[in-house]
Amino acid sequence: MSSPFTPSDPDFARRVQQSFAAQAIMQTIGARLAEVDVGRVVIELPYATGLTQQDGFVHAGVSATIMDSACGYAAFTLMPADARVLTIEFKTNLLAPAAGDCFRAVGQVRKPGRSVTVAEADLFAVSGDDQKLVATMTGTLMTVLPRD
Amino acid sequence: MSSPFTPSDPDFARRVQQSFAAQAIMQTIGARLAEVDVGRVVIELPYATGLTQQDGFVHAGVSATIMDSACGYAAFTLMPADARVLTIEFKTNLLAPAAGDCFRAVGQVRKPGRSVTVAEADLFAVSGDDQKLVATMTGTLMTVLPRD
Amino acid sequence: MSSPFTPSDPDFARRVQQSFAAQAIMQTIGARLAEVDVGRVVIELPYATGLTQQDGFVHAGVSATIMDSACGYAAFTLMPADARVLTIEFKTNLLAPAAGDCFRAVGQVRKPGRSVTVAEADLFAVSGDDQKLVATMTGTLMTVLPRD
Amino acid sequence: MSSPFTPSDPDFARRVQQSFAAQAIMQTIGARLAEVDVGRVVIELPYATGLTQQDGFVHAGVSATIMDSACGYAAFTLMPADARVLTIEFKTNLLAPAAGDCFRAVGQVRKPGRSVTVAEADLFAVSGDDQKLVATMTGTLMTVLPRD
Repeated sequence: MSSPFTPSDPDFARRVQQSFAAQAIMQTIGARLAEVDVGRVVIELPYATGLTQQDGFVHAGVSATIMDSACGYAAFTLMPADARVLTIEFKTNLLAPAAGDCFRAVGQVRKPGRSVTVAEADLFAVSGDDQKLVATMTGTLMTVLPRD
Repeated sequence: MSSPFTPSDPDFARRVQQSFAAQAIMQTIGARLAEVDVGRVVIELPYATGLTQQDGFVHAGVSATIMDSACGYAAFTLMPADARVLTIEFKTNLLAPAAGDCFRAVGQVRKPGRSVTVAEADLFAVSGDDQKLVATMTGTLMTVLPRD
Repeated sequence: MSSPFTPSDPDFARRVQQSFAAQAIMQTIGARLAEVDVGRVVIELPYATGLTQQDGFVHAGVSATIMDSACGYAAFTLMPADARVLTIEFKTNLLAPAAGDCFRAVGQVRKPGRSVTVAEADLFAVSGDDQKLVATMTGTLMTVLPRD
Repeated sequence: MSSPFTPSDPDFARRVQQSFAAQAIMQTIGARLAEVDVGRVVIELPYATGLTQQDGFVHAGVSATIMDSACGYAAFTLMPADARVLTIEFKTNLLAPAAGDCFRAVGQVRKPGRSVTVAEADLFAVSGDDQKLVATMTGTLMTVLPRD
């Protein structure tokens, strides 16, 4: 897949992997980093009963957790080697109950910027061969540099 | 504290407690239901290293998890006895790093409606006697009735 | 272009045109309905100095006006013949200054629903042959039926 | 009224008035700057048929226009004398039809920041002595300095 964006740090994938590994919440919920491309990151999360709301579906906040990290790391792939990434805000629409064997959060940069980047994520519920869109997110991310 | 709203089910607090107890994610992250009033619910979450992002702060998705439940249950206090509550969408702004001993998500109904209710949550980081606003949320909740 | 959606009212385009014609604000700002397809509506707005903010760009609220109507009418194309459409909420990110000869708001349904529909809009600034994405919107729309 | 914030430029009110006067859209829709305080700005808009959507209510985009400016100028009151203000994003919930003689958008800073400020606005419909909350907004504003 070709990307419309050019990374400023060719070693972006390693930076994303290291930062993701430092997000303890990802181990707590059982999420893993599935794909890292220029401006695009996929996080996968198997269903677990410990992640659910009152009806047995994955809680919207858990969905938001992997979509936020997918957006944040998609933005992070385009940032300089010494940058940190912060979420300024995000908004998510829950389109259908998060029911399935596994969930895929696909984060993609919509508009990179020197200090502010906008990214979007789609969340798919996967059950066997079936894949269904269950949530979307728009996130605004900030690039924080050492001199800031 | 007096509320501008009147609950349609006087037994609303028990309904919220039962539904909260059925949200397995709340046990997973260690959150507890601290207060239930008419149109207002508070959820508390002690800091734990298993909830963090790469810088050691509580992950924005975890913050969103307790704010979303605080908004949802605040709305739920005003719903009929046989209703379920669903989150249509939420938006959160992260104002400061979620650093502290404990976090309090205070959810309050802004505008109740027959089918759609709007609620807001503030997230405070508590450290000793100090309390700091670290995030806000606006959520849109749907009332789902058995006949729907 | 084929649409993944099926309209419940084959006469949807006429309904959209009539409703758009009744939006007096569209005449006030000079917007016109450019395209109406199943689940997709395009609104165009020529630049005018009377639409600007302090730096001479089109005001974000004007951008939001045509994106909101593009989202709302995209949803409206899929609604029953006797339905009205209401905006529950929308969120917009301003990606670049709204500078150009003309603006195109392209609204598309992301997830239709019996009572709640989610739509998205992209706003493009057009200058000669050049087209640039300057804003995005996610909107939540409600179907209001006579019996409601 | 006392404000929790301290302006860096004591001449903030004049800066807001000058910038507001340069927003041509405000004249087009008939809006006026009603109050300017530290971290708080009120914009008023009389009802006019030229501002309406298909049901005769003020269009949500017009409501957003004055709420966005109220948020932006509330943030602007706290910015340095040489700063410009840009809207990064906003989200609005429409709580009730915008019906009334006049509309008051009350914007207030929730969290000021060196580069990013979060503000909120409430929109009230005023009819005689009656005042009703009809919409809310959360906006994220950026401080742009000459050296940026």
